[in-house]
Amino acid sequence: MSGNSFGKLFTVTSFGESHGPAIGCIVDGCPPGLELSEADLQRDLDRRKPGTSRHTTQRREADEVQILSGVFEGKTAGTPIGLIIHNTDQRSKDYSEIMDRFRPGHADYTYTQKYGFRDYRGGGRSSARETAMRVAAGGIAKKYLKTRYGIEIRGYLAQLGPIKPEKFVWNDVYENAFFCPDLYKVPELEAYMDELRQEGNSIGARINVVATGVPPGLGEPIFDRLDAEIAHAMMSINAVKGVEIGDGFACVEQKGTEHRDEMTPDGFSSNHAGGVLGGISSGQDILASIAMKPTSSLRLPGNTVNKEGNPVEVVTKGRHDPCVGIRATPIAEAMMAMVLMDHMLRHRGQNMDVHSDTPVI
Amino acid sequence: MSGNSFGKLFTVTSFGESHGPAIGCIVDGCPPGLELSEADLQRDLDRRKPGTSRHTTQRREADEVQILSGVFEGKTAGTPIGLIIHNTDQRSKDYSEIMDRFRPGHADYTYTQKYGFRDYRGGGRSSARETAMRVAAGGIAKKYLKTRYGIEIRGYLAQLGPIKPEKFVWNDVYENAFFCPDLYKVPELEAYMDELRQEGNSIGARINVVATGVPPGLGEPIFDRLDAEIAHAMMSINAVKGVEIGDGFACVEQKGTEHRDEMTPDGFSSNHAGGVLGGISSGQDILASIAMKPTSSLRLPGNTVNKEGNPVEVVTKGRHDPCVGIRATPIAEAMMAMVLMDHMLRHRGQNMDVHSDTPVI
Amino acid sequence: MSGNSFGKLFTVTSFGESHGPAIGCIVDGCPPGLELSEADLQRDLDRRKPGTSRHTTQRREADEVQILSGVFEGKTAGTPIGLIIHNTDQRSKDYSEIMDRFRPGHADYTYTQKYGFRDYRGGGRSSARETAMRVAAGGIAKKYLKTRYGIEIRGYLAQLGPIKPEKFVWNDVYENAFFCPDLYKVPELEAYMDELRQEGNSIGARINVVATGVPPGLGEPIFDRLDAEIAHAMMSINAVKGVEIGDGFACVEQKGTEHRDEMTPDGFSSNHAGGVLGGISSGQDILASIAMKPTSSLRLPGNTVNKEGNPVEVVTKGRHDPCVGIRATPIAEAMMAMVLMDHMLRHRGQNMDVHSDTPVI
Amino acid sequence: MSGNSFGKLFTVTSFGESHGPAIGCIVDGCPPGLELSEADLQRDLDRRKPGTSRHTTQRREADEVQILSGVFEGKTAGTPIGLIIHNTDQRSKDYSEIMDRFRPGHADYTYTQKYGFRDYRGGGRSSARETAMRVAAGGIAKKYLKTRYGIEIRGYLAQLGPIKPEKFVWNDVYENAFFCPDLYKVPELEAYMDELRQEGNSIGARINVVATGVPPGLGEPIFDRLDAEIAHAMMSINAVKGVEIGDGFACVEQKGTEHRDEMTPDGFSSNHAGGVLGGISSGQDILASIAMKPTSSLRLPGNTVNKEGNPVEVVTKGRHDPCVGIRATPIAEAMMAMVLMDHMLRHRGQNMDVHSDTPVI
Repeated sequence: MSGNSFGKLFTVTSFGESHGPAIGCIVDGCPPGLELSEADLQRDLDRRKPGTSRHTTQRREADEVQILSGVFEGKTAGTPIGLIIHNTDQRSKDYSEIMDRFRPGHADYTYTQKYGFRDYRGGGRSSARETAMRVAAGGIAKKYLKTRYGIEIRGYLAQLGPIKPEKFVWNDVYENAFFCPDLYKVPELEAYMDELRQEGNSIGARINVVATGVPPGLGEPIFDRLDAEIAHAMMSINAVKGVEIGDGFACVEQKGTEHRDEMTPDGFSSNHAGGVLGGISSGQDILASIAMKPTSSLRLPGNTVNKEGNPVEVVTKGRHDPCVGIRATPIAEAMMAMVLMDHMLRHRGQNMDVHSDTPVI
Repeated sequence: MSGNSFGKLFTVTSFGESHGPAIGCIVDGCPPGLELSEADLQRDLDRRKPGTSRHTTQRREADEVQILSGVFEGKTAGTPIGLIIHNTDQRSKDYSEIMDRFRPGHADYTYTQKYGFRDYRGGGRSSARETAMRVAAGGIAKKYLKTRYGIEIRGYLAQLGPIKPEKFVWNDVYENAFFCPDLYKVPELEAYMDELRQEGNSIGARINVVATGVPPGLGEPIFDRLDAEIAHAMMSINAVKGVEIGDGFACVEQKGTEHRDEMTPDGFSSNHAGGVLGGISSGQDILASIAMKPTSSLRLPGNTVNKEGNPVEVVTKGRHDPCVGIRATPIAEAMMAMVLMDHMLRHRGQNMDVHSDTPVI
Repeated sequence: MSGNSFGKLFTVTSFGESHGPAIGCIVDGCPPGLELSEADLQRDLDRRKPGTSRHTTQRREADEVQILSGVFEGKTAGTPIGLIIHNTDQRSKDYSEIMDRFRPGHADYTYTQKYGFRDYRGGGRSSARETAMRVAAGGIAKKYLKTRYGIEIRGYLAQLGPIKPEKFVWNDVYENAFFCPDLYKVPELEAYMDELRQEGNSIGARINVVATGVPPGLGEPIFDRLDAEIAHAMMSINAVKGVEIGDGFACVEQKGTEHRDEMTPDGFSSNHAGGVLGGISSGQDILASIAMKPTSSLRLPGNTVNKEGNPVEVVTKGRHDPCVGIRATPIAEAMMAMVLMDHMLRHRGQNMDVHSDTPVI
Repeated sequence: MSGNSFGKLFTVTSFGESHGPAIGCIVDGCPPGLELSEADLQRDLDRRKPGTSRHTTQRREADEVQILSGVFEGKTAGTPIGLIIHNTDQRSKDYSEIMDRFRPGHADYTYTQKYGFRDYRGGGRSSARETAMRVAAGGIAKKYLKTRYGIEIRGYLAQLGPIKPEKFVWNDVYENAFFCPDLYKVPELEAYMDELRQEGNSIGARINVVATGVPPGLGEPIFDRLDAEIAHAMMSINAVKGVEIGDGFACVEQKGTEHRDEMTPDGFSSNHAGGVLGGISSGQDILASIAMKPTSSLRLPGNTVNKEGNPVEVVTKGRHDPCVGIRATPIAEAMMAMVLMDHMLRHRGQNMDVHSDTPVI
């Protein structure tokens, strides 16, 4: 409970630095009997993996996950699942120049103030490298939710800098390196990213995640509401600065008649709420949207201070993503999966014997 | 840990329904030696209290909090602090009409699906009435942070429907019923609200919260980041649909050079990050912003279904806030206080013996 | 999570001092639909209540519990259940003499060292008065387990000083003030206690708790084993110094052939394990035994120090139990109920879809 | 929080089965700045390691621990410490005969009932093999407590079957394979164990653990008392059936005048309480004692049932400890270290600004 665990009944605990020998996690609380192999987790890991297109960091990591425990004869045993990924491409020398100066927009300064010193190799623990384990752990939740309940969790790029998709085709998402649901926008995205890379700059993005097939009843008010836990999960991802459920900030200017989702025997007439009412899932699609800041690792020089507090300039020469949002889609999906999985187990435990006479609309 | 507790070392556990005999909470983990009396908590409770202007619900609640334990001879004793507020103005009859139909936009349907039935009196547990206890509990955190560390937590109305403040004067916030930092905007707000009330409709709002004086080092990556816990806390407030830290969603269109806050020996040059880097406080002001949806309790009829799943119309006749955002400012402050308090204690416990050589800029 | 909460899914959070206005607790996580009223909890509270015989403290407390929330139309609603008992007989003057000296065997010195000062009125938070709330909260668990699963939890006095029951009749337990399962021993117990009271001394006791009807499968290895949580729960009761499961310390001298419980199609041949194997319930009776120390509040003077660290003598004149073990039976039952309830909910959540082909023997 | 995590601020989460590729754990919450290398942990691992004398299992495991994260330039970084031990000597074939029958006294039946099936290779998760990770994790706590606070945690064999040490010399403990504090008893122990092994039987044992140098103030009443958490920790060790603090069950027959520890300006006059009063450490030595049952893996046949519920006989042919108590001493020390470490951090967080005027006696 010291910061690296997430979830109450489906608990993921993570370890590992960017340039240590390995990263890993323990998934505790997965019900027994789920068929599970490394291949189930590798698919999403490959989606997140660096170096798959010219638009992401050129660090090369195989990101091959190994299951160390918790699976017996091809099925989860109900015991904790140990997962490990060995780091293979750590060029520590890239970071020697920044070891005594604080990169603006990074966690260098705050880690130093908190812990007294920091692992300067590639950001150490603060590197987004740890998100690989989120993807692996979330993959277990995803598979369970899908096979046991038909719940599907999918994300996509909703905006990158000034560019928004104009059409929406789920299948398109899986056909391009940006997770963009509009294939016609991909050339524009590529041109924009090429220009940005040449400039040495970076850009923000918006990722949307949709969970379909979620039954009503998940979420534990008043503090462990489903939307509150989704917000926690999403904001815990590196570089995320905002989270919305359903209409999000648009509701600031909405009237009640506009926002409230009317109900009919055939279901809700709209989904402004994003599938959560009073902190509990309504049976509609869960809709979450996140804002990813532009990465702060730039080739363009920036002003900062060094360990002694003196003014210096810093340039980041390592290999970095000019838009961290690009690879964030599977991470956001994984966090959504963890939350839904945890709340499914909690709901079952507490309300197993509940039978509502009210039909699910 | 079943949903009604928040915080690891400073833990608030809440109970109570809108129309039960009382609401209350237990604040566990407040350090000993803090001077504390009911008066310390009453000030913020009065700010949240219904019925203080014509723009909020006309339900009359004294909202007088009583300290039942944990304070000895005027000081906190280190033992759990029991707080209680008796409900005094519960007109249960107001709700008889909606007991078998689900109000759109409310938690009626989801509570019924989750628990099999629901307390239909004023929303029961899903009523925003519980937020009074958040304000009381947060008041203890506020006082501790202020007296022990000089941390100040203040919120204000940043937008109500189409109306935004144009000037910003902290003192103005305390001089009007809207917590608006621009007194010149108050007549416009009043006119807008009067019109809305006549129309029988409601409106959304945006509330900003600022914490000043927060030292660097608070937050426990990777999951219990300070910003992630703030997001959790804020999204757990009734009607909140979005949370931003610092620039929030604006960073989707920002470039790295624009977003990253440069550092000088005299401090950061800007605060796009909102005071959190890598999930840890940087020593800058913590900036959070939340979107409150328009309340769904309207006099204007809406389509819905009843318990049997048949289509019906619903009109809410009770006493309601046409803009729940108005009274939300002290609630959002309280949640921020709880998070900072909890993380201050966690940070102390874990890093008490850390002394960074790097000066705080 | 700061020390006054117990349980993960069925969570009891407690507050209150011996001489404050009230004690109370919040029971979070009780499934909805359980018929519940104050009368259900009062029976056990009356069993624990002081002043019911001449062998316990003469403090008079009605110990009338009030349900403040979480019950709607006679049934639990799935929301937190707030419970309160007002203190009615607090004679604070009794304690004026010990306010600046530390009673040996009490928590006076440790509370002062931990918190810097202490509530000296009747022990404040360290008083066994708080156990009334354990009994009330445990009563909810007891009722749920009984009505939903047929699980019954019963305790009895297994030894008081040198006196042990020789016969065992469950019904006898409820027919005497000692919870002794052997009515023939009661005159001996009464004579012993009368002598002790005259002497101004106190005595230890052993309480056994038995849970019948517990299905196999409860307990979450490796740390949250059922027996480990029972040990935690029992040792958290005031004055408990030892906990045994099944044969307990007797197994130090046992051989494997003697201890291991053989199995037959008709069930286990013995129950040395006390119903727990590998941290998981086996379907046999759960057997726990606890040692209660003699109370340290004696009329016989003892050597100690005062707040300044100088040697002084102390005599306790208040009203006290010469054997705290006498009233401990319902408390121990309550703690067992909390543990089983919590683990039943956790087990359901995690293993709801498990169907073992192996018959329960 | 699903059963394989222990501790709130110093949190150990464990994974791994007896015959999987590796066992491991994550230690989250260790303060930064502690010098740490594998060698610090290996010493205790070697003490627990199987196959070091003829009196323990002949399974050969190097038990070499590797630190995967959380240590940077020889010091803990404040980030989670990943630890791993690869299993090297898994003879799965040894277990083929018991895969469809339940060994009496083992967790075979309960795991099957809980999870629907079980990993039959050497007990899978229920094997005491996992205790290696407890020793490694506890080693970190031990080192921190020793170097930062001078707290020392040591255990010894207090009884093995009928044999008890008659003298007590701390140094002797480290000079024999039994951790016996009386070297003169070692030949008797050896003869007893040889006889037992020939007989094919096993025996119980009692282990005592002593923590010296613990300051007053650790422990969080009412539920997270120091003694309650010690009881939890100890009872979570495989084969433990009883836990005592201080005089333990002896206090059942003690009078108050005998049990209460009087105080003088030079300290307590005795330590019946075992260093804990009201759930908080008193500054005296913490004394805990545990009962270990005889292992149930015997060459002598026992009656049981198979998966279909039919009666069968079982003989355990694998390599086992005839007295699991022998290797349990470092495990019990490790659990004590985890509890004290966690409570030290919690106490610091909550009571950092407390200064008692009362001198520590």
